[in-house]
Amino acid sequence: MKHRFSPGRPCPVEIVPQWDISTDVAIVGFGAAGSCAAIEALNAGAAVDVFEVASAPGGSASLSGGEVYVGGSGGTEVQREHGFEDQTEDLRQYLMMAGGPTADADRIDLYAEQAAAHFNWLRAQGVPFKGSYLPGKWIEPTTDDTLIWSGNEKAWPFSAKAKPAPRGHTVEFEGWGGGQLFMEKLSERALELGATAHYESRVLCLIVDQEGAVKGLVVRREGKELFVQARKGVVLCAGGFIANRGMVKRYAPEALVCEHQVSAGNDDGSGIRMGVSVGATTLNMQEFFATLPFFPPESLVKGIFINERSQRFINEDTYHGRVAHYVLRQPNGRAWLLVDNDIFGRPFLQPNITIAAVGETWEEIETELALEPGSLAATVNEFNRHASQGADPYFHKSQEWLKPLLTPPFAALSYCQGDVEGHAFTLGGLATRPSGEVLNADGEPITGLYAAGRTACGLPRWGEGYSSGLSLGDSTFFGRQAGASAASMNS
Amino acid sequence: MKHRFSPGRPCPVEIVPQWDISTDVAIVGFGAAGSCAAIEALNAGAAVDVFEVASAPGGSASLSGGEVYVGGSGGTEVQREHGFEDQTEDLRQYLMMAGGPTADADRIDLYAEQAAAHFNWLRAQGVPFKGSYLPGKWIEPTTDDTLIWSGNEKAWPFSAKAKPAPRGHTVEFEGWGGGQLFMEKLSERALELGATAHYESRVLCLIVDQEGAVKGLVVRREGKELFVQARKGVVLCAGGFIANRGMVKRYAPEALVCEHQVSAGNDDGSGIRMGVSVGATTLNMQEFFATLPFFPPESLVKGIFINERSQRFINEDTYHGRVAHYVLRQPNGRAWLLVDNDIFGRPFLQPNITIAAVGETWEEIETELALEPGSLAATVNEFNRHASQGADPYFHKSQEWLKPLLTPPFAALSYCQGDVEGHAFTLGGLATRPSGEVLNADGEPITGLYAAGRTACGLPRWGEGYSSGLSLGDSTFFGRQAGASAASMNS
Repeated sequence: MKHRFSPGRPCPVEIVPQWDISTDVAIVGFGAAGSCAAIEALNAGAAVDVFEVASAPGGSASLSGGEVYVGGSGGTEVQREHGFEDQTEDLRQYLMMAGGPTADADRIDLYAEQAAAHFNWLRAQGVPFKGSYLPGKWIEPTTDDTLIWSGNEKAWPFSAKAKPAPRGHTVEFEGWGGGQLFMEKLSERALELGATAHYESRVLCLIVDQEGAVKGLVVRREGKELFVQARKGVVLCAGGFIANRGMVKRYAPEALVCEHQVSAGNDDGSGIRMGVSVGATTLNMQEFFATLPFFPPESLVKGIFINERSQRFINEDTYHGRVAHYVLRQPNGRAWLLVDNDIFGRPFLQPNITIAAVGETWEEIETELALEPGSLAATVNEFNRHASQGADPYFHKSQEWLKPLLTPPFAALSYCQGDVEGHAFTLGGLATRPSGEVLNADGEPITGLYAAGRTACGLPRWGEGYSSGLSLGDSTFFGRQAGASAASMNS
Repeated sequence: MKHRFSPGRPCPVEIVPQWDISTDVAIVGFGAAGSCAAIEALNAGAAVDVFEVASAPGGSASLSGGEVYVGGSGGTEVQREHGFEDQTEDLRQYLMMAGGPTADADRIDLYAEQAAAHFNWLRAQGVPFKGSYLPGKWIEPTTDDTLIWSGNEKAWPFSAKAKPAPRGHTVEFEGWGGGQLFMEKLSERALELGATAHYESRVLCLIVDQEGAVKGLVVRREGKELFVQARKGVVLCAGGFIANRGMVKRYAPEALVCEHQVSAGNDDGSGIRMGVSVGATTLNMQEFFATLPFFPPESLVKGIFINERSQRFINEDTYHGRVAHYVLRQPNGRAWLLVDNDIFGRPFLQPNITIAAVGETWEEIETELALEPGSLAATVNEFNRHASQGADPYFHKSQEWLKPLLTPPFAALSYCQGDVEGHAFTLGGLATRPSGEVLNADGEPITGLYAAGRTACGLPRWGEGYSSGLSLGDSTFFGRQAGASAASMNS
């Protein structure tokens, strides 16, 4: 029988004609997780082959800001240098909240304890961090500074339960896209240590034995199928599935309103599908990161979002991705940011924003938006009354961002679906232990299979709780665990 | 090597010592889906063995109200007799809305076209329906009447897009729990036609060949493992996973606030886990049906729900399960139903409801609930002003249920988490075609494997869109498809 190779069904080892390549640890994907898995597997003495579908390493991490979310242990070197104490328990508590209803305590405990050391490890691999602190509220720094406030730390309800500290640590790079430098350093390090990289090599499926243990990979390179033996294990680091629109439609259809994919293009879900093919279970496949970057200028954070019922629905000083999730779920996908003349500015990242209404009074704005008479003015007046006293009893926006909206002309910026362009990537993936072992539906590990990065359901697993740097922090840290675990297996 | 049998990993056919039982179609679970799968497989000429972990047939369906959600084709016999026209397109449109973001158009098209005929089929199997119509708003009729309004048909936004008709068709049975009679009739029919039933028989895992095709089951009965050959296929009809708290925690943790499981106790997710073990993909595992039955008396539907911000959040005349989902997601899990003296009554199904506040004015209620001064009165006054004009511009509650809340004393019934008892069952499950074929992560069928009922992700797949009768309608109809599909396979 001719076996057709596809990620959704494994190849039985019995039909493998020969091993074209034989290695200890075979890694699928040479992005952030794959690079770090390779480094640790090599450090443990294993032979490592990395298979990358693109013609160079980096993956989607190379398009990122090159920022990791780390802290705890009293603070990283950089946090402490700038006077920010950061206890492990505060990082732990923050990550538990950030993980949402399915937060994984074991994974979080390990990360909270070791994140500060992980930052040192990244430096030791050659990733440069300048060590400076950049105050303010940023989507991503365009300077070469290191430390930024990159999440929900100072915003309710997070601030009420975990002592805030800035934890975004960004690679030393001027301009956007420091992820490229970040990934150059990590992939170079893996190669220096002896990883064998195979580019333009598409992994078609896993190879399994009769008992379901993973034995290797079928890879297509230059039109030929190669059979790869992985004596110790396979580590799936093949990204998420935002670039596979069929999968997004099936598993996370609410992400479809975001037209921009945060991906280098190869997040096709094949890593997840390969895991599923051998009995892995998936978690949180409906979850995704989204943003509608409504600031900078940061003055806009002082505006208030309302829906078509003239109701507020979020403290606007929370992380932009959390705001985006709330905006996207409003009735009929309609929401507006209300501003006055003191705080108005065109959002830098959405310069063509639709200004849906301008007026000298809030009643004019209300009429232009065709909202219920009296409703918008009531909401704004109630907000202003409290804001002038430095309070927001309904949504707990912090005093730093509270200002009554009193200076005409007033305006409503449209964040209605269709008017704004969102950016998204997926957070659901294979269930794994913190060690990277991939789990079946009974919660037991599948022999020979590991996963990390967005192929797994990791630390970032709840759109409402995302913070910048969480995906790269997770991918690098748990990539390391997965590589070390695979290398420690008896072959 | 000794193979340990568990649902999460299949048994390789190579290690099967002998076939203890050999049949054409092996069905896991003798509930609604399993009974109907058996009937159709038998009608197609197949030999059928059904494996049931309990000591009698019925499954969780036997605890239900015995109600199916059917219509279309101009109306069922009963709908037409009582003057309700119901076009297939209206049923289709309603089901598309009810399915939420991942509604499955192919499945819905088939069901909408054949639901009225399916009702006749159920009658032909011996399920009695009296044929009468019961007006009003019910959780479940305790009379022996047939036709009721059982969903969101008359409520916004459903009513705006699909012409309403009552579609709940309930078995002829006095009192609660007509599902028992319903299931007696269907299981008797399957046995009459020649199904071999095995009770107190726990299915441990699937048996697969080298290519991943499903070949049978390992069953434990009286302490012994039996190897069952299924020449044509296995149909998984083993229910959902609400009774498996570990799975609920992992996949649908938000359901944990509902302390009552809508289950006969065997919804342990083993059907889903067996599907996953052979590479099936799952859909909507986070979704669940929930209810906090706040009426009858139906006068309470005229009350308004508010959250701790004194905001309304739902039209209260929508289906009680939809209301429950909105209540459960309010900030800090806090919500109250506000009533005046004209409409007050203790909810029949929650007689010990906490009355959180009573007062002569809304300001008193506000103070007792410790809400922001002025906020509750503003919300109620705005509601009353519109209600007195027969309008609800914000939430579109229908005129039939609109009444200004003006007659003191006023009260707030607590629907805060911890104060109310919810009821839940899971809606996520294996991805299948309308035929019942189980799909892998590439969307391709797994040879020899079928699923229906709550083991599959079927018509009811979105908690906010549930209607009474949808699960039983889906289980019986798609159970039939799965049984017929399996029987038509070449063995």
